[in-house]
Amino acid sequence: MGSQARIDKYSPLDSQDAKWIKLDKIDWTDQAGVSRVWEVASRKTRGSTGVDAVAIAPIILRPNTPAAVLILHQYRPPVGAMCIELPAGLIDPGETIEEAALRELKEEAGLVGRIVEVSPTICSDPGMTTANMQLVVVEAEMAEGEELGKQDLQDSEWIETEIVPMSKLLDRLLELSKEGNVVDSKLYHWAYGIRFAMQNAAKYKLDGPAS
Amino acid sequence: MGSQARIDKYSPLDSQDAKWIKLDKIDWTDQAGVSRVWEVASRKTRGSTGVDAVAIAPIILRPNTPAAVLILHQYRPPVGAMCIELPAGLIDPGETIEEAALRELKEEAGLVGRIVEVSPTICSDPGMTTANMQLVVVEAEMAEGEELGKQDLQDSEWIETEIVPMSKLLDRLLELSKEGNVVDSKLYHWAYGIRFAMQNAAKYKLDGPAS
Repeated sequence: MGSQARIDKYSPLDSQDAKWIKLDKIDWTDQAGVSRVWEVASRKTRGSTGVDAVAIAPIILRPNTPAAVLILHQYRPPVGAMCIELPAGLIDPGETIEEAALRELKEEAGLVGRIVEVSPTICSDPGMTTANMQLVVVEAEMAEGEELGKQDLQDSEWIETEIVPMSKLLDRLLELSKEGNVVDSKLYHWAYGIRFAMQNAAKYKLDGPAS
Repeated sequence: MGSQARIDKYSPLDSQDAKWIKLDKIDWTDQAGVSRVWEVASRKTRGSTGVDAVAIAPIILRPNTPAAVLILHQYRPPVGAMCIELPAGLIDPGETIEEAALRELKEEAGLVGRIVEVSPTICSDPGMTTANMQLVVVEAEMAEGEELGKQDLQDSEWIETEIVPMSKLLDRLLELSKEGNVVDSKLYHWAYGIRFAMQNAAKYKLDGPAS
């Protein structure tokens, strides 16, 4: 990686001058029949799938090592900081969710895997944006000591990969956060859920009969 | 709940006419020293805490029942559908994260709880927005058969609550999704992490030594 990325300037942007995103006013009628207004930001790039983006939870399996997760370090101008995220990307025209997931994982991390599970379409920030996505869980087998393949990044992309033991994922995210990185909320919630279940199975009776 | 909410009209909105959100162009310099442009949506409401919002993971503990989670059903104009979410809200001026969390939980769900854990500041959708948040885990004890307190909603809020056994949370979210609701990505990732750890502890050696 070269020197540090930096923000030089913010300037107001009108929707019609933007290439990627826009603002809209929504006139809507609530459950009581009252007319109301909401303001929303959207991506201009959503295609025929109706889904903006895919995120990938890449599980790395090695013969003698507990399962690990691949995460990315990436400077994000909207946050003005290095962000810690799952591999993710927008869906290209004509692409399925599964194709986009395997392509992004290969490009961003040099990793080839097989799809284990695909989530329904979920919304990213439903009070503010139309943005939506699907989460694809991918398993990839690697030999002990094997390294990730070559990334295939665009000129504008600088992405570092890190492989973290799954049982220590939350600890690592908290450490990276303390060091000044900003963790993506979806990665954090997933890691927190894993740790939460590991620690609280007995206290919360997660194995017991649910009622 | 009254009749169904609906979208009547979308119209383009300029940042200067918007009350809640805005678009900006970011001029930034990448790690190679190349000048680049990024487009970003932001909330206009961020206050002195530097954090836009809080989400609450409310764990309900009853004497003879496995732990449960409180989730919300709420019509969201940006998504044009009923969304399934954790309780959440923007942080009021002068409020701490902890105060906002307990206030929102009381207002949206009529539930009083105690804070167990507060996440670092995490970013909501770092490729598109500056939006950030903190996740606050809250435990609330209820008697068997006790009902939630009265909600304290604004005129424009219609929120239904549901209590779901934690071990069945992901199943319930998938069911609600099939019925046409849209699940929030953060709630989904947390629920998925819980289920993931419950199902895969042995396969992924989550209890073994991490390396």
